[in-house]
Formats: sequence, structure tokens, C-alpha cells
Amino acid sequence: MRNNTMIIGIAGPSASGKTLLANTIVRELGSDQVVVITEDSYYKDQKDITFEERARINYDHPDSFDHELFTQHLKALQNGETVLVPQYDFTQHVRSSTFREIGKHTIIVLEGILLFFEPKLRDIMDIRIFMDTPLDICLLRRLQRDIVERERSFDSVLQQYIDTVRPMYFQFIEPSKRYADIIVPRGGENRIAIEMIKAKMRELLVSN
Amino acid sequence: MRNNTMIIGIAGPSASGKTLLANTIVRELGSDQVVVITEDSYYKDQKDITFEERARINYDHPDSFDHELFTQHLKALQNGETVLVPQYDFTQHVRSSTFREIGKHTIIVLEGILLFFEPKLRDIMDIRIFMDTPLDICLLRRLQRDIVERERSFDSVLQQYIDTVRPMYFQFIEPSKRYADIIVPRGGENRIAIEMIKAKMRELLVSN
Repeated sequence: MRNNTMIIGIAGPSASGKTLLANTIVRELGSDQVVVITEDSYYKDQKDITFEERARINYDHPDSFDHELFTQHLKALQNGETVLVPQYDFTQHVRSSTFREIGKHTIIVLEGILLFFEPKLRDIMDIRIFMDTPLDICLLRRLQRDIVERERSFDSVLQQYIDTVRPMYFQFIEPSKRYADIIVPRGGENRIAIEMIKAKMRELLVSN
Repeated sequence: MRNNTMIIGIAGPSASGKTLLANTIVRELGSDQVVVITEDSYYKDQKDITFEERARINYDHPDSFDHELFTQHLKALQNGETVLVPQYDFTQHVRSSTFREIGKHTIIVLEGILLFFEPKLRDIMDIRIFMDTPLDICLLRRLQRDIVERERSFDSVLQQYIDTVRPMYFQFIEPSKRYADIIVPRGGENRIAIEMIKAKMRELLVSN
């Protein structure tokens, strides 16, 4: 831990419950000293290529993320500085013109599929948690989210899953599990895991 | 939790660091309200068969354990009663004539290879932790312990590993991982896991 700032990373496959776990923990803690930053905010800005080219990019590959800027921002936050976290426009595949201003927090919770891939980013985390949700459950959640909630076609979701989501999981995400300190089975609603992570965080919040 | 008694089970392969994790947590907490009970204490008493027959028993199979007595004792502890935990004599493969008297504790930590096998025993636990130490690391630790510390022959350790330890792991222990709430990689010296489990326990000890 640097400067009494704890950085907790929650990684794991797409639709494994990372966001749910992170948001549940932070909501239940109810402290303004805890903030969540998603890796998705650090998708590279693809504004210099056409929309058609952007639509063909593999967004499940580590190269799609600006992990260097992400690492710089986390170091700045550890130093008590304020950073402007990019916002990503998923409909246009570019960074939007707005930012999210984040200042000093005691606990910074990160969530994203490839948090443990880059050594410099990985090493900045004090606690690394991996969501080991079975892939069929992740796929069910993904279908629910993309088809029912985002009104995408079944064919396009299936194609993306076969083309990039699944192969990138086995190539990059699953091997990064070895860097986890704690592995959480059964998704973002695992109450025991939530209570243990909260207990650790509460101790830190009380002592600060 | 029943009667403010929390039961935490630490399961996983033989020589995965279960005992080390349990003992480290309890020692560092330094509270007389926490006690460790090992599943090994509940090996069935084999006094009615010959020593040669006892030596041939598969001690990695669930049938070798008296999980019913174990469960009864835990329920009694939850009810505030005092129990006489058997002591097992590993040299003679029988229960020894002495017992360990255990009374009311706020936290009871169990450790053993097959804690999650029997539904009644498994269901009594409030937190289930599985040590997912790689099998080659477990084997290294086993060789160190049995050959160097216990002066057993390499051949006998190898034979037991191939005959019972490894097949029983795949048949009974590995499938029981699905019942874990939290999975701990990297063995009993995983500091982050130790700190998180301790934080949860400390909260309970303070509130009692």
C-alpha cells in the first residue's frame, strides 16, 4: 500500500459478475472513501480510423486497452493527485469528450477482464481477486445482457463470442488467474466473498 | 451462524497448506475464542481388525472418516456444549485412549481433505475455503514432510501417492471444490488470503 491507498483489482471473464461484485461491495460499505474504476474506461481512442475499421477491432485483446495511461492514473491517485478518467463511447468506439474527475480515496476498486495482464498495472494492486464463474454461466449472462437489454441480434452476439470473447479468454484472461490472491467462484452474488472483502475494507476505512 | 458460533472449513488436497493456513490465522488472531479442529481426529477407530489390515486401508477415502460423529460434535459445540474430540494414533491406525476436551468458542476452524464431501457436515459450515494449491507443489511438500521429517522411504510415499492420494483427490476432493465460497491459490502462506480471513474473524470477535 502506498500513501494509505489500497488498490483492489477484480478480474475475470466477461459477464462473470465483476461489476456486480464491485458495485455491491461499494454500495454496502456506503463510504465516500471508496471508488470503482472500470478498465473499460481505458479502451484506446480509435478516432483516427473509420467507424467500419473500429467495428472490426478485437476489443477482448490487451492491445485494445491503454493500460499505460491506466497505470499512470493509479500512481497519480496513490500520490494524492486528481485524475481525469476517460469515458468511453461504446456506440462510436471512441473516447467521449467528457471525463470523470476522481480525487484521493482510501480504497480504489478496479474491475476489468485484463487487469492482471500487464505486469506494471498488475503490480500496483494490493489485492487481486479473480472471478472464476463457469463460462456457461457467463455466456447466459452475456446473452441476457446483450440480446434482452441491449437489443443486439443473437447472431452478432454469438459471432463475437466465438470470434473474440472465447479465444481471448483462453489466451489472456484464464492464464492471468495465476496472479490472483483470492479466487471467487459463483459470480458477483457470492455473499461470503462479499462479506470477507467488505470486512478487510472496513478495517482499512476505520484505521484511516 | 447458530448461537454466535462461526464454523469455517478449510478443505483441499493433502499437503496443500490447510494446517499452515489454519494455524497461522489462529496464532495471529491470538484469541482464546478461536479453536482449530482437524478432520484427521475423526478417522474411524480400526481397532477390531489386525494391524496388517489397518495398514492396507485407503485413508484418503471418505469411508475412512467418521463424519457423523464429527457433525454431531460440531452441532453440540454450536449448542454451547463441551465435546471430547478423539485423538488419532497414526502409528497404530486406531483412536488413542486420550481425548481433547473442547468447549464453547466463537470461531471453530476445521481443516481436512474431505470436509466438503458429506452434505450434513458441509452444510454446518458458515464459510467454506478451498486450498487450490497446484498438485506438484503439494507433492513436493508431501515428499519433504514424509521422507525428510517422518523418515519414510521414497518408495512407500510414492506408492501411497499413486495408489490412494492422487486417485482419491480426483474422485472426491477436486469435485468438492464446487462447494467452496472462496478459493485460495498459492498455499498456506498466501498473506492476502490470511489477512482477509482474519479481518472477517476479527469483526466477529469484536462484536461478541
